Amino acid sequence: MHKGTLTISSSRQMELMDLTARIEAEVGKAGLAEGICVVYTPHTTSGLTINEGADPDVRKDLISVMQEIVPRDHPYRHAEGNSPAHAMASLFGSSVTIFVENGRLQLGTWQKVFFCEFDGPRSRRVHWRLLGG
Amino acid sequence: MHKGTLTISSSRQMELMDLTARIEAEVGKAGLAEGICVVYTPHTTSGLTINEGADPDVRKDLISVMQEIVPRDHPYRHAEGNSPAHAMASLFGSSVTIFVENGRLQLGTWQKVFFCEFDGPRSRRVHWRLLGG
Amino acid sequence: MHKGTLTISSSRQMELMDLTARIEAEVGKAGLAEGICVVYTPHTTSGLTINEGADPDVRKDLISVMQEIVPRDHPYRHAEGNSPAHAMASLFGSSVTIFVENGRLQLGTWQKVFFCEFDGPRSRRVHWRLLGG
Repeated sequence: MHKGTLTISSSRQMELMDLTARIEAEVGKAGLAEGICVVYTPHTTSGLTINEGADPDVRKDLISVMQEIVPRDHPYRHAEGNSPAHAMASLFGSSVTIFVENGRLQLGTWQKVFFCEFDGPRSRRVHWRLLGG
Repeated sequence: MHKGTLTISSSRQMELMDLTARIEAEVGKAGLAEGICVVYTPHTTSGLTINEGADPDVRKDLISVMQEIVPRDHPYRHAEGNSPAHAMASLFGSSVTIFVENGRLQLGTWQKVFFCEFDGPRSRRVHWRLLGG
Repeated sequence: MHKGTLTISSSRQMELMDLTARIEAEVGKAGLAEGICVVYTPHTTSGLTINEGADPDVRKDLISVMQEIVPRDHPYRHAEGNSPAHAMASLFGSSVTIFVENGRLQLGTWQKVFFCEFDGPRSRRVHWRLLGG
């Protein structure tokens, strides 16, 4: 099974980091023509998402609107103060699945794969696997 | 690998469109008895979800409550004015995975598979793939 | 194909229930060394998520903040009164995908797999499947 782990260093408290080129390079090295690629974060205050990569303002808007949607002011019990980050992790999800076609990720025109840091800055890891037909 | 693409025409700005029968027909044609079916949207202002299909009011409630949860009034930077649609895309997700059992989708009694238009009306595409055991 | 169904009894209206040990036991019995595990809920007022399991306050915070994010007071049309639960189901999602490595779930240090009851108490089922490489 083709698989691996990417290491990531986030530099802000919240940040969407484009992993597309790194995952594409791994898929290219694996040499799988057709299948699915699953990308997974083993952390509980981060997520993965697929969204627009062309305009960096979309990423900024995603962060600022999530900060409005998930209240910072709330009677949280968890003492670490990062409960909003845990909520964002569940709202965005811990994995994405992308198709592999002709040895490449079959993304839409505007789609990129983002690691979503919700409680940085930190060192992070992301696992990926390829499954054939 | 069994795979294909469905074309969709949404007719409203926001709309949940039931794809279940079309995906079931593709699974039936593929003739795979057992496995998983992944459905994927290549667009960044749409999503996929599995939810109740019996009462059409559930779909209407999902749309109206998402319009309340994701604010329209927010200092968005992205100039196209569809940042709420991008946020909904990340909140719902770009794919769903369903099991195939005896050549059919193994959905719960009330479950249907919905394409979620968040920035329509538009022509859209949805990719699907089947993986056997 | 390795697969099965877990039965669950929730005891509250909203509750995050840790399924990790039960899924790990099924993966162990299946004897698959390497692959992916997909867990799926066939219900439309529940979800699945992966989040922190060490501090039970994280689960309580997830529930209380979701009750604030998804309004109870909203002009819902669906007569059953559980529209917030349907919205939470779409926000969290109906499945999670986890990697299997050396015959075990490859979860992060703090990660556990949770069944998310949004409209209990009820008897529920959760399906799981393993796919090899």
